Amino acid sequence: MTTPLPPGLSQSTLDSALRAFESALGKEWVFSSEEDVALYRDAYSPLRDEPEERLASAAIAPSSVEEVRAVVRIANEMRIPLYPFSTGRNLGYGGAAPALSGSVVLDLKRMNRILEVSESNASALVEPGVSYFDLYRHIQERGLKVWLDPPDPGWGSLIGNALDRGGGQTAAMYRNHFDAHCGMEVVLADGDVVRTGMGAMPNSATWQQFKTGYGPWVDGIFSQSNFGIVTKMGFWLMPQPEAYLSGRVVMFKHADLIPFVDIMNYLENTQVTTGMPYLGSPLLGSDIPGAPPNPLSPELADLLATPGGPQPAQLEAYCRKTDTGLWSGRFQFYGPREVIEAQWSYCKKRFAAIEGVRFEEGELLQMPLSAADLEGRQKVLFGVPNLQIFSLLGRTEHSPPVYGHVGFSPIIPRSGKAIYEAQKVFTEAAREFGLPLNPLNMPFTYWQRAFVYIFLFPITRDVETNRRNRDAFRKLVKICAEHGWGEYRTPVAYQDDVMDTYSFNNHALRRLHERLKDAVDPNGILSAGRYGIWPKHLREKKG
Amino acid sequence: MTTPLPPGLSQSTLDSALRAFESALGKEWVFSSEEDVALYRDAYSPLRDEPEERLASAAIAPSSVEEVRAVVRIANEMRIPLYPFSTGRNLGYGGAAPALSGSVVLDLKRMNRILEVSESNASALVEPGVSYFDLYRHIQERGLKVWLDPPDPGWGSLIGNALDRGGGQTAAMYRNHFDAHCGMEVVLADGDVVRTGMGAMPNSATWQQFKTGYGPWVDGIFSQSNFGIVTKMGFWLMPQPEAYLSGRVVMFKHADLIPFVDIMNYLENTQVTTGMPYLGSPLLGSDIPGAPPNPLSPELADLLATPGGPQPAQLEAYCRKTDTGLWSGRFQFYGPREVIEAQWSYCKKRFAAIEGVRFEEGELLQMPLSAADLEGRQKVLFGVPNLQIFSLLGRTEHSPPVYGHVGFSPIIPRSGKAIYEAQKVFTEAAREFGLPLNPLNMPFTYWQRAFVYIFLFPITRDVETNRRNRDAFRKLVKICAEHGWGEYRTPVAYQDDVMDTYSFNNHALRRLHERLKDAVDPNGILSAGRYGIWPKHLREKKG
Repeated sequence: MTTPLPPGLSQSTLDSALRAFESALGKEWVFSSEEDVALYRDAYSPLRDEPEERLASAAIAPSSVEEVRAVVRIANEMRIPLYPFSTGRNLGYGGAAPALSGSVVLDLKRMNRILEVSESNASALVEPGVSYFDLYRHIQERGLKVWLDPPDPGWGSLIGNALDRGGGQTAAMYRNHFDAHCGMEVVLADGDVVRTGMGAMPNSATWQQFKTGYGPWVDGIFSQSNFGIVTKMGFWLMPQPEAYLSGRVVMFKHADLIPFVDIMNYLENTQVTTGMPYLGSPLLGSDIPGAPPNPLSPELADLLATPGGPQPAQLEAYCRKTDTGLWSGRFQFYGPREVIEAQWSYCKKRFAAIEGVRFEEGELLQMPLSAADLEGRQKVLFGVPNLQIFSLLGRTEHSPPVYGHVGFSPIIPRSGKAIYEAQKVFTEAAREFGLPLNPLNMPFTYWQRAFVYIFLFPITRDVETNRRNRDAFRKLVKICAEHGWGEYRTPVAYQDDVMDTYSFNNHALRRLHERLKDAVDPNGILSAGRYGIWPKHLREKKG
Repeated sequence: MTTPLPPGLSQSTLDSALRAFESALGKEWVFSSEEDVALYRDAYSPLRDEPEERLASAAIAPSSVEEVRAVVRIANEMRIPLYPFSTGRNLGYGGAAPALSGSVVLDLKRMNRILEVSESNASALVEPGVSYFDLYRHIQERGLKVWLDPPDPGWGSLIGNALDRGGGQTAAMYRNHFDAHCGMEVVLADGDVVRTGMGAMPNSATWQQFKTGYGPWVDGIFSQSNFGIVTKMGFWLMPQPEAYLSGRVVMFKHADLIPFVDIMNYLENTQVTTGMPYLGSPLLGSDIPGAPPNPLSPELADLLATPGGPQPAQLEAYCRKTDTGLWSGRFQFYGPREVIEAQWSYCKKRFAAIEGVRFEEGELLQMPLSAADLEGRQKVLFGVPNLQIFSLLGRTEHSPPVYGHVGFSPIIPRSGKAIYEAQKVFTEAAREFGLPLNPLNMPFTYWQRAFVYIFLFPITRDVETNRRNRDAFRKLVKICAEHGWGEYRTPVAYQDDVMDTYSFNNHALRRLHERLKDAVDPNGILSAGRYGIWPKHLREKKG
């Protein structure tokens, strides 16, 4: 691996820029040695160790908004491509490596101040370097009765995850992390600092209380994009609920998913359930979608390996024989005991419409849980960041060994029919491309109204395998697009491919992105290529 | 009133443009006679009958996206300022009149197709001319079990109200109309058509199911702005709930609002209550903020008129003597009977912490209500559009008589302290400016996390009174800004004044708006001046 230069720039220009960055940030916060820069490689890159791997030319780490402004001014003057990231922990969707090789990565980890946590408004204002762990610790130390909604793993940045439009696993109102933000501060490419929402009013009393402010609500254009560097962001937190209850609905017939999803949607859309439902197949022994199945009986393994996928009647027969459910939905409830008991009881009443359904009662737990209570439980459900499922695939047997994964994440309709269709399409694709996937894999339910059918592509150290998998990934992007399913997020290696599928009216949305890009970053110094948006000078070369 | 010309254009240029519009839309959909154009005046304009009144030069009414595209192409070529609106029913915040006099108003009422209503996804896809009444009728005729969340009055457009970021009064998830939208189609100034979210994928299966799509989420920039013409928009609807319950919390001490709001916030932020709470003062006999009080006893009227506002002890003494509450909160619950009863019961448990509090049980109603059941009830609470409170102020005695109102709508923190502060500030302002306001007026709770303290300024036919009120309005904008309270929405006459208060970093947000404007509408043909955003050529003149 050789550290690349920014495209079109000489070593001496880069060196002058690095010296200018040193004057602005201090010598110790500019990194250009090969070993330092290597730390910013994407450990899960599908291009790892290949010439196309996206690599930084250098790294710099400002500690304040003023330093970020100084950096962009230098970069603008010298046309240095920058690639800002918050903590760079977005493994599986890109990590800290730039979309354009030769970019200087702008590491915001040092900007890790927790500027405010309000218990009465249940909100926080943080800098990009603040991780879920940092904020959790801060809250615990002060005994504040507010919860986070961490993703799993929880070592990343609140701002980074929200800007990538990631999700968590507690209550509906908090699970969509971009949706749960309230107010931003953004440094634009020319160094101008904008505050959005009510933050645009000096002395604002409601920056973390009212999202949209006055006039065009611009926050959205700074997510999944390269239009500015977000240096502060507010978040709504969930007040600590009094209790938690869970319950499971188990079904035995293949066709049961159709009424099940309809009922589940009604319950969510009327806010009877607000916790995240986990859809699974008890035959697999886990209801966390994408998790490797528990050891399967040889008979079941054979059944699942049936070419074209197992037939519904075969699955149902196996379920009867083993008295195992075929599908299940695990529901979570947060709130006062009397309310969540009534909610679960009503859910059972509705799901009882599915013939032969069984209910499994979960525990009723009073909050807060002690450290001992948390042991062995799914910590994210209680707002506790952790690394429990980190590198789940790496812990299973694969040949060649798996060092990571990238997420293939299409949005599919929230219907039983769509689940069957996705299972069919992905089972066929997995077989065709030789990828691990269980034909009974179920979608995630982070968001209301739509499913995301996550399929993890393994990353190996074998270049040939990775290359094959990349071809497969790209084919699957197209297959999904034919079904009307679009990825909501993807690793940098595939961001152009995915954007290509959002092609209504001859790529009108991309044209709009490019217009906005040219307006806010005319020299194209910020995150060239991110989410398929290239600055003018590189666009023309590409075109 | 003389119909004005577009600024800088001659009558003959306008005439050529109108002829071109006639070729595109048909002669009958281009209006330029004085009496036709007068129909587009803002009936509630604070500038009515004055030289500054914002008036259209002509009106045109396309019936399709293709016609809208033809219109903007002509306007771009001939530099005709256009002012699109959906149904023009946004009385109190601008109506159909343009922000820039001489604009050609682009009336989208004819684009009134209901393109889809899905019961299972509880969503709709509509054109701008579709009113709440239209969609309600469509749903009723088909017996679909989904509710609207209409504003009151409900004759306006779903798209128009959402783009102005208006709110309704049913459950929290649906009350913020911009938040409850899912997917847009926008015609840009150059005639390009963009679909946002998953709609950017041809053949998308989830346009009304997943909001943010892939890449920068641009939807927000088309709200409260002039960046494009929204021609389709999706909305999430509430599935018809099984039952409705209400209950009232009545308090007797002035200081009770402090714990009351904290408890109310906890209940909302943990989703124990999802209906809209109405905060009121039983002394006034109404708990709809801004509604004129019921006839007051002479003693109470005197008390309320105390210079500087009544003292807490005086109010409390009057409450004791008359056995009337001083403050109240009315809560609404939607859902299964057993759940909403448990929710209200838990609310009472929490509010019982306020000493001396009383609870009034409301009715438990099974849905749907018949037309007879709806009689005499607050229809918006049941998703039924109506004109019940239309022109509320006009029905009261004022001198000079009141013909309408404009809303002064600052966002204040969601705390008891902020209510007291707002009551004080507005009572003083009302006295100083000679405006009607009850010192016990309470904020609205459309949105979670923040209050909006709506103060209706009367519009009369007396130019002097209107002029005085305009000065008062502008002063109040500044007074509020000093308290950190910003208006979330305002009539066209005040849009620059309000934008001026969002001045962080020397108006950085406005500079960003202007950059985006120039990028998407370089000739500045769309809605010049709307929400304080002026196109380049007019900005320079203004500056």
